Amino acid sequence: MNKYELSFNEDVFKYLQLYRHLKKMIDNGEIEGEEKLLSIREVSTLLKVNTVTVVNAYKKLEQEGYIVTISGSGTYARKKDVFRMYKKDYSDTFKRLPSERLKNMIDFAGETSSSDLFPVGTFKEVLNEVLDRDGSDALIYQEMLGFSGLRESISEHFWEDSISYEDILIISGAQQGIDIISKVMINPGDHVIIEKPTYSGALSVFSSRRAKVHEIEMLKDGVDIEAFEKVVRKIKIKAFYTMSYFQNPTGVTYSLEKKMKILELANKYDFYIIEDDYLSELIYDKSIEYKTFRSLDYNNRVIYIKSFSKIFLPGIRLGYMICPPLLKEAVQNAKVNSDIATSSLMQRALDLYVRKRYWQEHIKFLNGEYNKRYIHLEKAMKEILKDKVSFNSPGGGLNYFVKINNKITVNSTELFYRCREKDVLITPGGMFFKHFEDGDNNFRIGFSQVNEEQITKGINILNEIL
Amino acid sequence: MNKYELSFNEDVFKYLQLYRHLKKMIDNGEIEGEEKLLSIREVSTLLKVNTVTVVNAYKKLEQEGYIVTISGSGTYARKKDVFRMYKKDYSDTFKRLPSERLKNMIDFAGETSSSDLFPVGTFKEVLNEVLDRDGSDALIYQEMLGFSGLRESISEHFWEDSISYEDILIISGAQQGIDIISKVMINPGDHVIIEKPTYSGALSVFSSRRAKVHEIEMLKDGVDIEAFEKVVRKIKIKAFYTMSYFQNPTGVTYSLEKKMKILELANKYDFYIIEDDYLSELIYDKSIEYKTFRSLDYNNRVIYIKSFSKIFLPGIRLGYMICPPLLKEAVQNAKVNSDIATSSLMQRALDLYVRKRYWQEHIKFLNGEYNKRYIHLEKAMKEILKDKVSFNSPGGGLNYFVKINNKITVNSTELFYRCREKDVLITPGGMFFKHFEDGDNNFRIGFSQVNEEQITKGINILNEIL
Repeated sequence: MNKYELSFNEDVFKYLQLYRHLKKMIDNGEIEGEEKLLSIREVSTLLKVNTVTVVNAYKKLEQEGYIVTISGSGTYARKKDVFRMYKKDYSDTFKRLPSERLKNMIDFAGETSSSDLFPVGTFKEVLNEVLDRDGSDALIYQEMLGFSGLRESISEHFWEDSISYEDILIISGAQQGIDIISKVMINPGDHVIIEKPTYSGALSVFSSRRAKVHEIEMLKDGVDIEAFEKVVRKIKIKAFYTMSYFQNPTGVTYSLEKKMKILELANKYDFYIIEDDYLSELIYDKSIEYKTFRSLDYNNRVIYIKSFSKIFLPGIRLGYMICPPLLKEAVQNAKVNSDIATSSLMQRALDLYVRKRYWQEHIKFLNGEYNKRYIHLEKAMKEILKDKVSFNSPGGGLNYFVKINNKITVNSTELFYRCREKDVLITPGGMFFKHFEDGDNNFRIGFSQVNEEQITKGINILNEIL
Repeated sequence: MNKYELSFNEDVFKYLQLYRHLKKMIDNGEIEGEEKLLSIREVSTLLKVNTVTVVNAYKKLEQEGYIVTISGSGTYARKKDVFRMYKKDYSDTFKRLPSERLKNMIDFAGETSSSDLFPVGTFKEVLNEVLDRDGSDALIYQEMLGFSGLRESISEHFWEDSISYEDILIISGAQQGIDIISKVMINPGDHVIIEKPTYSGALSVFSSRRAKVHEIEMLKDGVDIEAFEKVVRKIKIKAFYTMSYFQNPTGVTYSLEKKMKILELANKYDFYIIEDDYLSELIYDKSIEYKTFRSLDYNNRVIYIKSFSKIFLPGIRLGYMICPPLLKEAVQNAKVNSDIATSSLMQRALDLYVRKRYWQEHIKFLNGEYNKRYIHLEKAMKEILKDKVSFNSPGGGLNYFVKINNKITVNSTELFYRCREKDVLITPGGMFFKHFEDGDNNFRIGFSQVNEEQITKGINILNEIL
């Protein structure tokens, strides 16, 4: 039987049945990404249906991004990338809507700092100061590892000189760090452990390197260490990707014991720890102590990646990496091969911003602001959503990870689309899992883009839908 | 026999013999990158030599970057990357020298626009205008494909609307474009054709994807098409990487016939053409017509990559790509996986710079300036170096590729180091070949970083050494 064939039933429009059949095949890989589909005429003949039926099914698939028609060539299935698709869907939301409606949008999905909290004036001041001070150098001159001034600032202000500026490599954001280290250490078929759930952008890179990815459940103090040890004992793994503070999306912070245990395993079983320290500047619960895997590393097992985009300004695309000595050379090569170097002007501006202590002031300010929202959101969810959902308090970061309780029948993808109709944006849990459906009962709710009034309003809308 | 063993002769210091022996093994891969070397004591026992001999050999290898010692762990061979090593060597030259001497440096090796030709004032003006106009948006808001304003400018000003802005993807320079397209289409073992010689940064990316790379000799009007056809007829190749105008390093521009023939072969044998259009703005010979592979492409075979860094400002790290429809989706995914998006502020500034027609004026100005240097260098080489070298006139671009004539005994690497002692920088030919030694008789001499006076002085120094 040809895979396009299906037995139609009488209750549903034929085009819808055909659409669902094809969609399912694309989803489960029976129709592969970039595979050429049968022509409309061919399908119509094969299934003995009107061409209009096939046209309508194809149209719907195209609208939803499952297929693409190239004039003069044919129709093709699209290689799906849930990370990108969702990102696109998220940003398209803003593009599609009239600005009137946009103003009322309640964005619990945004991951980056709110624009009203950003000191554009101060940053503009340092930008201009850099242009006056360095002239054309700021726009021309490039250093292999990044602007040495910024590397010195990072060494001094963020590491109290415990890391030499020569060991710091400037990168264009954390995503590039994950990409670079994957280029250096992950070959097709290599094994990698990730947290379950985790940041989809990392998962996406590992998959594109054709790594075998093992998900280990997140508990309240980090990954399930017994399950973890079972994997590393059985399989030679190359790396473990982790966010040690306010993990994305769970908000979990690792206990010191768990970090020490994982470092011990990394030594014993010879794997690297890729630590994505993405939001540790925002600590509301003062009992949380800041000790990264990197600072505890006693035998060169940790690759440390830090983004400035998340907390500061996504548009500046800056971050840095610290690597064990043996990997340094290869990592530098991979950076040069990736994009030669990171934009020089932005590095100089950030350097001056840090040296003038604006950075430190700004982080303090953000901690105060976000703490208010953090408390307000928690209170609103507890009071309004009550037992419809459950969640833990992360104690820092920019979001809560929420579980929809069992008696509620709506799954998180439906919830995403139904919220969006009401101008509320959340992130469906599936985004953070290897298998999308594993996140059906979870969603992430962030508070970086919303003020207190919007939080209350948004949670009330969520409540109605749930 | 252990690979470390060698039979010493009496004429040369033992440590030098050992150094050369080990260096050769690292060069030819008998000692692999990241391989741990025998300890000093072990080598000393094995070869029955004094430990001081081994210490001195290791010290020399370390100084030259062949090995690295990690305290408490041992000594390791380094994975060599000639592209990066040379770049480092080049930039280190500037770092190492006292600023007094730096001022007198004659830089025939620089690849980018000279800082004295860059209008910092105008660019600062647009940067500020963007910050005033867009406020925090310029530093925060990001679009998947890049800032739509800039994509519209590119479509309008560089393609006269023949390419839709929706088909343009902003990237962080051409190197990222090569990296992205390699991620999308090149898997380990895939075959790629490159020009011989070619841009080392591209070669480096293809090698790191573990492609099988075939070099095809460059003739006066493009690659040797017969040799090319022989390869594509025999082997399924994935892509051909080319610079159609003022090829780097040869300066060759493709004839229309050759471009059409290659497009025909691309259709017949189903491969893609990766066109790196890196310097076509600088045309001095007005008989050269501007027609890229992309503009001649009739069946979606061309991936077009354009850098703004080379001609404009290396520090802004901007470029763009245009891909065939079938690859668009995958290329966008690879961009997101690489670094999410390119810095937003720089895109907005460049957009405004183009819209205000500053770009067009600046290119006109550069054409005038560089044309003078181009003529002056050619004249100086003909008059001073006479029959010591031979070269073709590229008619555009920023460099000449020079052949050292047979009767001269110095090879281009020696020439590089001997020139450097006299504060003159050139690029040894080996940089552009798969096998470094293939470039022994060639060097590249660029005129973007030198004025007429420096050109005359530099060529006189070259003449003395040759």
